[in-house]
Amino acid sequence: MKLHGTMQINDRGHLEIGGCDAVDLIAAFGSPLMVIDEALLRENCRRYRKAFAHNDSAAVFYASKALLTTAVARIIDDEGLGLDVVSGGELTIALAAGFPPEKILLHGNNKSPAELKFALNCGVGRIVVDNPYELALLEEISTMKGCRPQVLLRLAPGVDAHSHSYITTGKNDSKFGFNIAGGDALNAVKSVLNAPQLELKGVHCHIGSQIHELDAFRCAAQVMMDFLQEARKETGWIAEELDMGGGLGVYYTSEDTPPSIEEYAKALQEAVEQKCQEHNYPKPRIFVEPGRSIISPAGTTLYTLGSSKEIPGVRKYVAVDGGMTDNLRPALYQAEYEGMIANKAREQAVEKVAVTGRCCESGDMLIWDLAVPHIEPGDLLAVSCTGAYTYSMSSNYNALPRPAIVLVADGRAEVIVEREKWGDLVRLHRIPDHLL
Amino acid sequence: MKLHGTMQINDRGHLEIGGCDAVDLIAAFGSPLMVIDEALLRENCRRYRKAFAHNDSAAVFYASKALLTTAVARIIDDEGLGLDVVSGGELTIALAAGFPPEKILLHGNNKSPAELKFALNCGVGRIVVDNPYELALLEEISTMKGCRPQVLLRLAPGVDAHSHSYITTGKNDSKFGFNIAGGDALNAVKSVLNAPQLELKGVHCHIGSQIHELDAFRCAAQVMMDFLQEARKETGWIAEELDMGGGLGVYYTSEDTPPSIEEYAKALQEAVEQKCQEHNYPKPRIFVEPGRSIISPAGTTLYTLGSSKEIPGVRKYVAVDGGMTDNLRPALYQAEYEGMIANKAREQAVEKVAVTGRCCESGDMLIWDLAVPHIEPGDLLAVSCTGAYTYSMSSNYNALPRPAIVLVADGRAEVIVEREKWGDLVRLHRIPDHLL
Repeated sequence: MKLHGTMQINDRGHLEIGGCDAVDLIAAFGSPLMVIDEALLRENCRRYRKAFAHNDSAAVFYASKALLTTAVARIIDDEGLGLDVVSGGELTIALAAGFPPEKILLHGNNKSPAELKFALNCGVGRIVVDNPYELALLEEISTMKGCRPQVLLRLAPGVDAHSHSYITTGKNDSKFGFNIAGGDALNAVKSVLNAPQLELKGVHCHIGSQIHELDAFRCAAQVMMDFLQEARKETGWIAEELDMGGGLGVYYTSEDTPPSIEEYAKALQEAVEQKCQEHNYPKPRIFVEPGRSIISPAGTTLYTLGSSKEIPGVRKYVAVDGGMTDNLRPALYQAEYEGMIANKAREQAVEKVAVTGRCCESGDMLIWDLAVPHIEPGDLLAVSCTGAYTYSMSSNYNALPRPAIVLVADGRAEVIVEREKWGDLVRLHRIPDHLL
Repeated sequence: MKLHGTMQINDRGHLEIGGCDAVDLIAAFGSPLMVIDEALLRENCRRYRKAFAHNDSAAVFYASKALLTTAVARIIDDEGLGLDVVSGGELTIALAAGFPPEKILLHGNNKSPAELKFALNCGVGRIVVDNPYELALLEEISTMKGCRPQVLLRLAPGVDAHSHSYITTGKNDSKFGFNIAGGDALNAVKSVLNAPQLELKGVHCHIGSQIHELDAFRCAAQVMMDFLQEARKETGWIAEELDMGGGLGVYYTSEDTPPSIEEYAKALQEAVEQKCQEHNYPKPRIFVEPGRSIISPAGTTLYTLGSSKEIPGVRKYVAVDGGMTDNLRPALYQAEYEGMIANKAREQAVEKVAVTGRCCESGDMLIWDLAVPHIEPGDLLAVSCTGAYTYSMSSNYNALPRPAIVLVADGRAEVIVEREKWGDLVRLHRIPDHLL
């Protein structure tokens, strides 16, 4: 397992994160446990701010859906980033953390009237309008409230990026945004310009997730700038802001060789600048919405090994005390991870095992082929790069309580999300009188 | 959409379940909403009890992982079924509902010491031992406590059933149970017989989920009985109980033509009886653990339609106010569902739409090809057969609160799980002092 951020192997031969020994963390906070490396989280935020430094600081909006807790929101704010939220729930968490609403973007393909009202009431910085229904709804609510929200329009540029490749298509088969091809995007620009209650600040696109090819981002930036030029010709409107969304790939295993944050920023900026020169278009502020590339490497999940099953000639299964309930990505996306036995970090590998979760479901696998030293029940498994889309997608399947999350730095560990207890599972359950 | 249980279309042209109009339910309890048809749930329990009537009543154990709430547990108990739980969490929910512990089976491939202690303390009826590590642990804890739990051994019969087909293999590549092939199962029987602290009542297997071929069940029953005969020859032990697990397929769409509960029971019983005659083996009590086939058709999810997006020549997307957070099965298993516009149930279909959820994720689809009448925002979509593996796998992804569940019967609707609120999402979040 590659060591990320402040990870190191200490004198006891244990994995240490933020100066905290993994064995001590489990002893203190229980198992399984998600550990967030505060220094690495902050470093990634700073690299993003610096890479987009020609813009002002709120040009980088952390994508909350990767992982949002009140403490994470505080760190994001500390580091001068904005926040991209996709629901009233994410907005609630941000506000509960005291996140400045004017630095929040509200996304979503199906925002409810209640969410739009909530967003306007608390004064979110931008509403990213996805579709004609929402546009009409937002106009109506803004008129009613007598406010004039600043909006971006979400566009579908016809660039589909699927991890290691991308395709450009005139027929963008996505539920999100106004298609550029066919003219919906241009009509949306005209609609907003004709809506006295809305202030059109720019346009947005998001071409996919875990993208390793900078050309996909360049291509999307070019398509967006060509669209802005066309829109200027048609309407005279000049966009102040170009939000290129998120999607930068990250390292999960040695198979992944993603571009750096700096390379990504350079590629985007160059593509936009080139097009600005070509079209003689005033350079818009570039926004980005990184989630995974900020939080994924900063998160590590610690599990305790339990039972195992060796099937001669097939494989050896080793079970941990978590699984698809705290990390759905292997089951949902066939995602791959690296791991190590955290309390035997210097011991030589002697076999390969398949790490399975504890759910009653054969698809509940974490790592199919992990090289391990001699292991026994009670050993700790660390799985790296689990910060993004793990806890945020976690469930209580099999009535498993969700793990705690601790923030570690400089030898100090603090709980930022409490562990659920068995008793929490019936908190919302009710037995009607006729069943008693 | 096929009408299940008490569903009917009422005079207003609305879908009605348990005598409750879907439009009224949403008005009263909010959207999205899961609706459980109490009469159908009870009917399925009764059919199972009757089909396995030559056994005593606790031979049918409802598989909690499909959906367990305290109210559901009460109904299962009312109907005389036992309960199959797979964790301390599920056991907690059962006990909170006053479920008799002696009618509970505890499953799991990686039970923790705490869970085994909890199970012994409360006196669960059977512990289904999965592996040698657990066997040693259970012996140790039982000795310490001075109790003698009744156990079943989970065996892997080498019959893998994957929905519409099954295969028999000597090398059973499963994380669960003691493999019969290779001798692990026989060794486990000997170990338990030699453990004075454990009482071996029988054996268990589970060959898969959503199985439509009765031959797969017959084959598994034959393999298990052949094993019991072999074990008797080797040890003299005669099993009192044969737990054949769950897995009976259900109707989701018109593509599915599962056997009935009665056909399933007959197939299992005949296969066991035949082998008992062949081996002159005293007939064991047959246990089964149905989950999906009891609760799936009794559940319906109601959503409200919001935004839509038409892509000429491609498809029309229509978004609902839920999605993969309340029903992960389409994203995780490519599961298919039927649906209808619940407030326009008699209107003629005029187009086909793709129903998408509201998560910021392109995989968040519910139904790819749904025929609908003229629809508009605010219309209600009913998705049928959502009782199993939906709420039980639900998440707060995108910080979406989980829906409420109501139980309906005879025109009466009662909340059995309260809707989560935005504020609930920060209940466990903590901000360490150094971040304030």
